[in-house]
Amino acid sequence: MTGFRHVVLFTWVEGTTTAQVDEVAAKLRELPAVIPEIRGYSLGSDAGVNPGTADFAIVADFADRDAYLVYRDNPTHRAVVDSMKPLIASRAAVQYEL
Amino acid sequence: MTGFRHVVLFTWVEGTTTAQVDEVAAKLRELPAVIPEIRGYSLGSDAGVNPGTADFAIVADFADRDAYLVYRDNPTHRAVVDSMKPLIASRAAVQYEL
Repeated sequence: MTGFRHVVLFTWVEGTTTAQVDEVAAKLRELPAVIPEIRGYSLGSDAGVNPGTADFAIVADFADRDAYLVYRDNPTHRAVVDSMKPLIASRAAVQYEL
Repeated sequence: MTGFRHVVLFTWVEGTTTAQVDEVAAKLRELPAVIPEIRGYSLGSDAGVNPGTADFAIVADFADRDAYLVYRDNPTHRAVVDSMKPLIASRAAVQYEL
């Protein structure tokens, strides 16, 4: 398969509640219906298997870099990102060609 | 789809060469042939679209948590991890249920 993948990992600030994370996840899960450039969208909270992990992952697949940029800059997506910002302690991301 | 996903992002130490990263990538790409529990395996270097990203991503899919643990603890995988360690400046990982 060819394509372009966006991967992002977050750690949440101390005191972030499960309800807050669930709300973020619900907002994120609405994005594929709003942004047709999203080909695949997967997210989840860390399963607690290993020590020292981050807290939350998003893996989003696109046909190509341009389709990813549409997602990145989409206003609905930006609004979700803005709503997440108070919860984010750290963020690591990579975009790569599939 | 159900399953279990392992996501890991790396930044490399300063001075890491493209040849070194290519060698790591080649070793990683051999793992699905060695570890049948790997259902999907994708990796790549950051495409340079955004500032502040990490350098390299691996996304590995498994049927379930136990299959992931087989991968995590497989000796061939551990040998690749050991060979990568001198290059790793930072690492962030999440495992989550698909």
